[in-house]
Amino acid sequence: MIAELISVGTELLLGDILNTNVQFLSRRLADFGIDVYHTSVVGDNAGRLRESLERALERSNLVITTGGLGSTFDDITKRVVLAIAGRPTEINREGQSVIDYWFSDDKARSDNRHVIEFPEGSTVFVNHHGTAPGAYIPIGQSAVVIFPGPPREMKAMFEESFAPLLSELTGEKTKSVSVQIAEFGEYEVNCRFLEPITESKNPTFAPYISDDGAFLRITAKGDSEESCEALLNGGIEKVRSVFGDHLIGMNVSQRSEILVNLLKEIGETVAVAESITGGMLASCIVDIPGASDVFHRGFVVYSDEAKHDILGVPEDLLQEYSAVSDRCAEAMLAGLHEKTKADLLIATTGYAGPTGEEIGLCYIGVYYRGNLRIIERRLKGDRWMIRNRARSLAIDYAILLIKESRKGA
Amino acid sequence: MIAELISVGTELLLGDILNTNVQFLSRRLADFGIDVYHTSVVGDNAGRLRESLERALERSNLVITTGGLGSTFDDITKRVVLAIAGRPTEINREGQSVIDYWFSDDKARSDNRHVIEFPEGSTVFVNHHGTAPGAYIPIGQSAVVIFPGPPREMKAMFEESFAPLLSELTGEKTKSVSVQIAEFGEYEVNCRFLEPITESKNPTFAPYISDDGAFLRITAKGDSEESCEALLNGGIEKVRSVFGDHLIGMNVSQRSEILVNLLKEIGETVAVAESITGGMLASCIVDIPGASDVFHRGFVVYSDEAKHDILGVPEDLLQEYSAVSDRCAEAMLAGLHEKTKADLLIATTGYAGPTGEEIGLCYIGVYYRGNLRIIERRLKGDRWMIRNRARSLAIDYAILLIKESRKGA
Repeated sequence: MIAELISVGTELLLGDILNTNVQFLSRRLADFGIDVYHTSVVGDNAGRLRESLERALERSNLVITTGGLGSTFDDITKRVVLAIAGRPTEINREGQSVIDYWFSDDKARSDNRHVIEFPEGSTVFVNHHGTAPGAYIPIGQSAVVIFPGPPREMKAMFEESFAPLLSELTGEKTKSVSVQIAEFGEYEVNCRFLEPITESKNPTFAPYISDDGAFLRITAKGDSEESCEALLNGGIEKVRSVFGDHLIGMNVSQRSEILVNLLKEIGETVAVAESITGGMLASCIVDIPGASDVFHRGFVVYSDEAKHDILGVPEDLLQEYSAVSDRCAEAMLAGLHEKTKADLLIATTGYAGPTGEEIGLCYIGVYYRGNLRIIERRLKGDRWMIRNRARSLAIDYAILLIKESRKGA
Repeated sequence: MIAELISVGTELLLGDILNTNVQFLSRRLADFGIDVYHTSVVGDNAGRLRESLERALERSNLVITTGGLGSTFDDITKRVVLAIAGRPTEINREGQSVIDYWFSDDKARSDNRHVIEFPEGSTVFVNHHGTAPGAYIPIGQSAVVIFPGPPREMKAMFEESFAPLLSELTGEKTKSVSVQIAEFGEYEVNCRFLEPITESKNPTFAPYISDDGAFLRITAKGDSEESCEALLNGGIEKVRSVFGDHLIGMNVSQRSEILVNLLKEIGETVAVAESITGGMLASCIVDIPGASDVFHRGFVVYSDEAKHDILGVPEDLLQEYSAVSDRCAEAMLAGLHEKTKADLLIATTGYAGPTGEEIGLCYIGVYYRGNLRIIERRLKGDRWMIRNRARSLAIDYAILLIKESRKGA
């Protein structure tokens, strides 16, 4: 089966928005054994979109569009697809309740009615993260699949609605799992696991890196659910035999979820003191539903003054060793320990740039029930990347320390 | 002038690599008034690449390729372009010294010789960050521009070598600006500014939404820098006449930058108390270089206990009104006021979900030099979207309050 991707939106041509949808779709379609030969971007121009769609329908079995489904006048995808399908339409009932949720007044509801109108015979995908539904729309021997543009909406819709449909269409039973690896980057994961990554055919192992750290996606193919499951379990064991405790979780959307679930399980709490991460660490913990059970409190102590005033980091320590030092990280933990009753304490300090000689140098301190670790790392990238990497490493080191400590106990 | 972008490489089709080149090129070409109508990705397949290039040369003045210029067997771009140009080639002298620098033995130097071979009449771009040069290669009435794939190499080459050439090639001048609008979403911006968005031809106005809030992109075309500038200024005035002080900034990468720059300008500081945003607000401020001058400190007080212990929010207030109330937001500000010496204070509290009846209800409190605002909003979306929207609104309301207060003073 051959698929073709068309991203719709002048903002993509103007470069205002980075197109991450193509990467996601290409990767997930490959999991179903579907080849993507062409991908393109079309601006908000109905004529050009129609031309691209018609050409794509001639040479591909599946034409997948993202974007152009919203309610503003330049959202043209649906209009063009309705025209190409050229058959009567119907209003999607489930979509109606979504529209009613997002828009309170009648004018806005009626302005947005076209968003839930589809050609007869379409399979409509409910949007749980926004207004516009997507759909699978058979046209002739092929089909057009339309998704909303925002990556969060598109990705959720793909997994919830389109992936099960694809399983049916391709007759391919596949199962896959993503396995989170702590501490290491993509390159290290690749080097340590090179043979399975390059040689293993079923299951396959593919290393990835996201803003949240490195993970391996294991994908198994078989003729039944059970055979896929068995292959997948064998794959997980192979990963564990190489990475041990560094395999910290599976199929989570964020690795802070692993930490929050672990703390919930053992009924403990966490407090954080953030300099270089400046709130990112607290935020990724609070982002997990139920974080209130485990998040004790957080202090954003970006200046030396705040480190001293709030956490009692001694002024002479800051002068002698500077705020970016293992001593300072340790003193931040000591201050947290005195101020809070949390079981797990995390502190971060470092140079995020964009200028300075030591840019990227950072110290992450973790403390758990008498066990202390201060880790020095030299991180690469721009200011946000350095801060974000310090954040995800802090989560990793906290998970590793808890596991290690509880094993020893 | 019309340009077309072709990204070469199977790794892009498989989704292993995020294609950031297209975003960069689209944006920079728009700066030169060059329209991009088509962008596509082609795998490492010479036949399909030739077909795509020939089609592109028929309909576009400028066909820009990225990738496929290296020395491995699957780097096909140069080979295909040489074939299409169909004229004698010559070795680029400057390129030779780069090859000599990177490769020490004769075999490697000779293996890489084809990398510096170009059709006669090409303008060759030296690569200061890698081995493979790029080039501007006139073919018939059009031209092919080839760039290496790695974004660092491509972007540097664009700025150093291609941008000056483009200035010469394009007679027409264009300028564009993005204008940040506070408080309103994309739908509201669209409704309030519908006529210019749909009718105005020069400048044009296009509404966008990012995770950071709504903005308008204004683009002007003219025959000189000055005429573009004048049209752009007229456009900005038109936006201001509708949105007034809600036009909070221009051409920033994040709107927290507007707040940080404003505080720097007036030599003041900010402190934050976060419940629903849980660190996001501090983080977006700290993400701006030089934030240390203005960010006083931050408290992540997610639990009732933390609100009471750290900010002195009275327990009976929390019991009577709950933590999600205007009273609690006000008490959080009062606690911040007592604890810090910051000029601007921001507090957030609300229900982020994913469950509960009042999900999305949130209160944002801002205090600036005697002026207090507590804003109630009902936000939509999933947990992250609600938290993030509360964060961006908090920044907006803080900017609006400072501007209003200083106007009154």
